[in-house]
Formats: sequence, structure tokens, C-alpha cells
Amino acid sequence: MVHVDALPPSGSPSVISVGDVETEAGVCIPDVHLCVYAFYDAATPLNERPVLLIEHALTGDGNVADWWPEMIGPGKPLDTERFLILCANVLGGCQGSTGPSSRHPDGKAWGSRFPAISIRDTVTAEKALMDVLGIDRIHAVIGASMGGARALEWTLMYPEIIVSALPIAVSARASAWQIGMQSSQIRFIEADPHWQGGDYYDSDSSPAEGMGQARRIAHLTYRGELEIDERFGTDPQHNENPYGPYRSSSERFAVESYLDRQADKLKERFDAGSYVVLTDALNRHDVGRGRGGMNAALAKSTVPTMVAGVDTDILYPWHQQEHLSRNLGNFVGLSQITSPTGHDGFLIETRQMGLIVQKFLRKADQLAQDPLD
Amino acid sequence: MVHVDALPPSGSPSVISVGDVETEAGVCIPDVHLCVYAFYDAATPLNERPVLLIEHALTGDGNVADWWPEMIGPGKPLDTERFLILCANVLGGCQGSTGPSSRHPDGKAWGSRFPAISIRDTVTAEKALMDVLGIDRIHAVIGASMGGARALEWTLMYPEIIVSALPIAVSARASAWQIGMQSSQIRFIEADPHWQGGDYYDSDSSPAEGMGQARRIAHLTYRGELEIDERFGTDPQHNENPYGPYRSSSERFAVESYLDRQADKLKERFDAGSYVVLTDALNRHDVGRGRGGMNAALAKSTVPTMVAGVDTDILYPWHQQEHLSRNLGNFVGLSQITSPTGHDGFLIETRQMGLIVQKFLRKADQLAQDPLD
Repeated sequence: MVHVDALPPSGSPSVISVGDVETEAGVCIPDVHLCVYAFYDAATPLNERPVLLIEHALTGDGNVADWWPEMIGPGKPLDTERFLILCANVLGGCQGSTGPSSRHPDGKAWGSRFPAISIRDTVTAEKALMDVLGIDRIHAVIGASMGGARALEWTLMYPEIIVSALPIAVSARASAWQIGMQSSQIRFIEADPHWQGGDYYDSDSSPAEGMGQARRIAHLTYRGELEIDERFGTDPQHNENPYGPYRSSSERFAVESYLDRQADKLKERFDAGSYVVLTDALNRHDVGRGRGGMNAALAKSTVPTMVAGVDTDILYPWHQQEHLSRNLGNFVGLSQITSPTGHDGFLIETRQMGLIVQKFLRKADQLAQDPLD
Repeated sequence: MVHVDALPPSGSPSVISVGDVETEAGVCIPDVHLCVYAFYDAATPLNERPVLLIEHALTGDGNVADWWPEMIGPGKPLDTERFLILCANVLGGCQGSTGPSSRHPDGKAWGSRFPAISIRDTVTAEKALMDVLGIDRIHAVIGASMGGARALEWTLMYPEIIVSALPIAVSARASAWQIGMQSSQIRFIEADPHWQGGDYYDSDSSPAEGMGQARRIAHLTYRGELEIDERFGTDPQHNENPYGPYRSSSERFAVESYLDRQADKLKERFDAGSYVVLTDALNRHDVGRGRGGMNAALAKSTVPTMVAGVDTDILYPWHQQEHLSRNLGNFVGLSQITSPTGHDGFLIETRQMGLIVQKFLRKADQLAQDPLD
């Protein structure tokens, strides 16, 4: 039974204690809290609604209506009149859930004391949240990028409560190229003198510059080369001249200014410590660890799983989604977003993304009615 | 007439004064020197040999036998028994040619006084070198990546002395994605406190760490995701454990160690100031500037030009080579290296690269015999 009283009002967050979490690598994080949003419109009793669990990407949060507005709402693919839709800020995050910027039981920030976490640890925490909320059946778990990694792990860790899954723009494990890009981003932050070994929270400064450097590169792995070029080409930024007699960082190309904005926006809304912890979790993503290897783990998967991706994604290239489709033990379909935008296509190509989610949820309905089919 | 006395012995460098160079943006660099290698075996008089001008990539140098060993030598595609082969370290470089680490006429390092240069400026300097050497006809100009950009500019700036050209793995102009990646790399160097505004040469430190950061990212744009993953996957570095309870930069994945080596190797052999100047020159690469736009400039090209590239290149994607093939005014062929290695395929896939160069040089022979054909 869903503990309706424990749910926040629709569209609002609630910070919920889920108890201690023991990480895969053996560290106990005491008294973890997760910040969860619930979305539900109209009068259908919440206990009669199928539950959709949405998993956000690296710097996302529980407010699906904020980062996927075209996807969620009454009559939209994630239909708030029909489903009870939940999305929790990830363990290790900085938008209400316990992470390195949170207060340790001793009252100071966790900082460098916050342990490394894996994608599995984030799912462990979310399972504890589901237990607190009285949710013992999840109609569908849906997520893209880091959210797709969590969706995959849900199907392998708790298949008994997951009816169906839609991991999007993700892979069975981190690739070496991803680890290379991601570990470099971590180093940019750690090289910032304001990082202070990760214990900057009670000081006057933060490694925002290092995180900005990381974001510039990350953003270029999220975006398609064709789309970026179509928008900016070799245009100079307005009133600046990158073709002058001496190079100057204040005489920029338009794309440099765009990346500056991406970096500045992230600095305002995200914590560098969380960026490091979650990026490290992405490096550790590997469904095969301790399960006899990647393909053996996928083969043993029993949860009906549809896979989707973007044709121009350079971070999670399409062949990784094809790999999932060939190896998942209960694979029910592969859908491609065709777009020049690259990885972020799942956020941008909302028409295509919506059709894929609708198709998947029709399949999930069939599976819920006739789970042996 | 080739000034044979001015040439270094085969396989050896010579630093040659080419006079003042006025940059496109209007700065005079006085008394420029270029370090040029010549390659020629056997007894054919040098004056009777067709001249091949090889253009190296960003961190390359004039010693083609060092970075393209399978391509150059007696009987090899760049046949030292038949041709007089020249390759000069680029203007702005740090391997013998005038660049920011060179001595200014006042005796101190150029440092921040070294002006911004364009790809065209590097060709201006090389043309002056050809004049000093008495070379008024170049059978073929061949280069990849930044060398391909110089090859293209040679055909547009001095078509009267170029018989044929083979630009490889390059584009008609920098793309916004390239500028994004490249300008970020420049910022990593400029953000290093040892950069000192570019005037670190007479101090005890250098921004080697910043250049190492740049190199980590650059290398991942040079290499194919499939090849990197095949080599390293999620392997931990020997005797290190990146899956431990707390993240540590000394517990690495194998790919992190590999990138560390790439960064360390570059720190030993390359100057950060040159890296900034040449990367900025790549940002400024645009054959269309001042010529009525990119396609108009290509259409006016009269030099027979063959184009080659790598199918998995993410830095100079294949569509850019297709674009050149559709727009060059005297286009004579398009050749693809098929390889998982990405951009660096021109260095790695020497069998395919050799066949392409041989095919191109047969075409160049025909063109030299019958230039009106």
C-alpha cells in the first residue's frame, strides 16, 4: 500500500529519511535523506495508480516538470492523470538528497568524508525510499544517461518489483572513452586550488572554476557536432573579435561564449563535490561487476526492457544501445531518436521522445496485464 | 633552381632565416626562422626531382621519418629515391622554428608578445622558405589535420607553384565543436597559475599541468571511442583500484593512466605557448575569410586536389571531407581510411594511408605531365 500521507503534494518535493545506506565498497552512510517529487493530477486514488519511477541525469533533479516539461503532465506521455510519478534526487546529489555538501551527523559538511558511490548504491537508496513510501510494485522505471544506468541497475537488483524498464542513451558499462572524459573532468575540479581536498564547504571559496572547465568539455560530449556548428559556426561573439592581432580570452567566438554560459549556469546551481561523486559513479557503472561479466548479467535480466538512444550520440554511441538490445535477457524493443543534437536528444527531441515513451508504456500495460506473455 | 647548398643533409634539420613575416592581422614578426628537414636518397640530382612538401600536424615537427616512418623512405609512398621531400616546423612552433618560446630580437623570450597567427600566416612563412631555397614548383603538398589546413591554404594562396594537393582529415574551416574543444584547451593552459600571462619562459615554472589537461581532452578527440575501449575497457591500472571505498586520483582506471602518459609525454617535448598559438590558429582556420565565403573560395581553387579522411574521426568528421569534395574547384578524388582509431587513423593505418598517397602521387604524375588534362 502506498503510504499516501508520506507523499508530497503533486509537483512538490519532500525530503524523506531512508535510513543508513551501506555502499558497495563497504562504507556506511548514516541517516540518508532523499528529496523526492511526486506528480499526480485528478481524483484517481493514488493506491490504484501504476507507479512510474523516473531517474534523472547527472545534474538533473527530482523535478521532472522542470527538465522534461513536454513529457510530463495531464494527457502527456508521462500522464499525471493516470500514473503516480516519482522522481528522487540521486544519492550523492546536491538538490535535497544526501551528498558531500550535506551536513554530516557531526554538523559539518561531509566533504571528503563522503564515500565513493556506485550506480548500484544510488539504487539501494532509492529502494529504501520505495520501502518507506510503501511502494512494492513499479510499473515502469524510465531514465536517460545516468538515469538510464540507474534504470538498468533497478532491473538487475530488484526485478521482483519492476514490471518494465526503459533505459535511454546509456550503456551496460562505462566505456574507456567515457572514463577518459569523465576522469579528466574530475581532475579539472581537483586541480582547482579552491577544491581544498574536497573540504571547501566551510570556507569562503569553492572550485567553481574547475567545475566550469569540466562542464565546457562535458557539454561538448552532450551535444552533436552538427547542431553546435549549425548554431554557431565560426561566428564571433557580438562585439568581440577573435581574429585580432593578439589572442585574448575576452575576444571570443560565439561558441566560446555559449560554453561560458553553460559553465556559469552550472556553477550557480550545482555543487562541485556532487559533480565529482556522481561522475565517479558513472566511471564505476558496470552491470557486469560481481555478476559474471557484462553479457552474463544482461542475459540473466528478467525484466522486460525497451532500449532507446540517439543516433548522433558520441558519449553513449548507438552501438552501445544495440549491444544492450542483443544481450538483455528480456528485451522488448529498440527505438532510435534521429537528431543532430547528440546525447541531449532525449531532452530536446521531445516529439520523438514522447512517441517512444508512449509506445513503451503501451507495452508496459500489456506486460502488467499478462506478465507471462 | 633549388639552392642545393642551402639544403641540410638528407634526414637532417636546418634552421633557415626567411625574413620578416607580416601576419594576416597586421603584426610584423621580424627575422623569422624555420627549421626544415630534407629527405633525399640516391644519386638523382636534386634539381631534377619533383618536390614534395609535407605539412605536419599540431604537435608534429619537420622530421617526417620520426612521425610517419612507414610512409617515407626508399621505395615507400613518399619515395626518397625519387622525390626531394621537405617538411618545416610550423611558424609558432617550438621545434626549431620561430614561436613564443624563441628569443625576441631583444634577447628575451617572445612570450605574450608573440602575435596571434592564422593558418595563412604559417603558409606565408613557408612560401618565404621556398623562395630562400629556390623552389618555385611544388609537385605535391601533403598534410593531415593542421597540416591539411596548411595544404589547403597553399592551394588557395600560391596556386601558381602547386601542382597538386592532398589535404587529409581536415575541413574547409574550423567547426564550432572544434572551436569549443580547442578554446577550452587554451583556457586550461591560461588558467594554470604558472602561465603568467604567457611570460613564463624566464621563470622557473611553466604551465605544463594546464597543457597536460588540454592534452588529455585533445587526445580523446584524436582517438576513436571503439579503439580506446578495445584497449582499455573498464580495466583498472595495474596495482590500482578505482573501485575502492573512497575516490582517489592515485587509484586509476587503465585509460586514466594512458591519458596521464600522453599528457606527460607532451609536457616533455612541447611548449605550452606554442600549443596556445597553434590551437588558436586552428580556431581561425577558414578558407572563406576575405574570399567571399567558404564555398566561393573552394570553388575558385584551381589546384588539382585529392581529399582523404577517416570514417570514425569525431574531430574532423567525414562529412567535412565530403563537403570539400563537393565544393573544391578542381577536385580529383576522395579516399576514406576505414578504421576504429578516429582522427589519428592517418598516423596509425599506414597501409591504407600508403595506398592513398601512392594513388594520389600517380595522379600528380599525370597532372604534372599534362597540366591541362
